[in-house]
Amino acid sequence: AAAAAAATAMSLTSDEVNFLVYRYLQESGFQHSAFALWNESYLGKSSVMSGSVPPGGLVTLLQKGLQYVDVEWHVTEDGLEVDCDDTPTLLT
Amino acid sequence: AAAAAAATAMSLTSDEVNFLVYRYLQESGFQHSAFALWNESYLGKSSVMSGSVPPGGLVTLLQKGLQYVDVEWHVTEDGLEVDCDDTPTLLT
Amino acid sequence: AAAAAAATAMSLTSDEVNFLVYRYLQESGFQHSAFALWNESYLGKSSVMSGSVPPGGLVTLLQKGLQYVDVEWHVTEDGLEVDCDDTPTLLT
Amino acid sequence: AAAAAAATAMSLTSDEVNFLVYRYLQESGFQHSAFALWNESYLGKSSVMSGSVPPGGLVTLLQKGLQYVDVEWHVTEDGLEVDCDDTPTLLT
Repeated sequence: AAAAAAATAMSLTSDEVNFLVYRYLQESGFQHSAFALWNESYLGKSSVMSGSVPPGGLVTLLQKGLQYVDVEWHVTEDGLEVDCDDTPTLLT
Repeated sequence: AAAAAAATAMSLTSDEVNFLVYRYLQESGFQHSAFALWNESYLGKSSVMSGSVPPGGLVTLLQKGLQYVDVEWHVTEDGLEVDCDDTPTLLT
Repeated sequence: AAAAAAATAMSLTSDEVNFLVYRYLQESGFQHSAFALWNESYLGKSSVMSGSVPPGGLVTLLQKGLQYVDVEWHVTEDGLEVDCDDTPTLLT
Repeated sequence: AAAAAAATAMSLTSDEVNFLVYRYLQESGFQHSAFALWNESYLGKSSVMSGSVPPGGLVTLLQKGLQYVDVEWHVTEDGLEVDCDDTPTLLT
C-alpha cells in the first residue's frame, strides 16, 4: 500500500526544480550562478515565485530521495528487510 | 526496520550536490548558469568530477525525495496506510 | 583650432559604452560575459539597441584614443612636434 | 608630423583591452559580468594584471578616441580647420 501511494506521488514542474536550485545557489553564496539562472530560466515570470521554498529545500529533498533509494535497496516489496549492508552511492 | 535503515542513509557532500546541480543546469540548456557554477563552486578541483552522474540525476533524486515525503505522509510508523488523499506540495 | 574642436567633442552615454562593450564581448566569443552584461546593464531596454555599432567598434575607438594620447604627448599646443621617442603606455 | 606620430602609435593587446573592460565592469557595479569575463578571458593568468589601470581608464580612452575622430572630421591633413558643425556620432 505504501508503494502504491508512492507510485502516485506528484511530479515536479521545471519551474519548481529551477526555483529549488535557485534558492540553493543563493543560500550557498553562489551569487553569480543564481543571477545567471534567474535570467536564463525566466524565474521572474514564473508563478512559483511567490511560493515559500523552505530554507535548505533542495538538499532536504535530495536527502529524502537518498533515503527512499536506501529503502528500495534494503526492503523487499513485501516489506521484508534485506540482509544487506551496502549503502547506495549518489553518483551511480 | 525500513525506517531504521533509512535513518542511517548516507548524506550528501557539498561537492556532490553542486555536481548534481551543475549537470542539471547543463542538461537544461542553462549554459551561463552552468559556467558560473563551475567557476564559483570550484568543481574543476573537486574529486567528484570523474564520477558518472547519471543523466537526469538531480530530478530523479528529487522525485524519489517526493515519494519519500509522500510515504511519510500516508504511512504510519507501523506500516499502516493512512486514509488521506492529500498530496504533499513541494514548496511548503 | 584643432584643440578647440576636440574640446567640444561629444561625450559618451553609459548606454553607448555598455553597448560597445557588449558587442566587444560578443565578438570576442565571451558569451557568458555578454549574457551577464546584457542583463546587468538592462541593454534590452536601452534605446541604443537598434543603432548599428560597427564591428570592432570598441577596439577601433580605443586605438584612436591611443593615437590621440600619442599626439598629446608629441605635439605642442602650437602644433609643433616634440622631439621625443617615448610611446605612451596604456596602463598608466 | 602629428599625423605621422599618430600613425606609429602602439596597438593594444587583447589582454589589455580585456583588462580595461574588466575594470570598467567592476567600476560600473556589473559584478556578474566582471566575474564572467575574469573567467572567460583567463585574466588571472595574464601578465597585465599587476599593471595599474587608472580608474575610469576605458571611458577616458574612449573619450579621447572620440576627440581623435572629431579632429579627423574637422581638420585637414594640412592642419587647416574645416568649416563644419557636424559632430561625429559614436555608433556609425
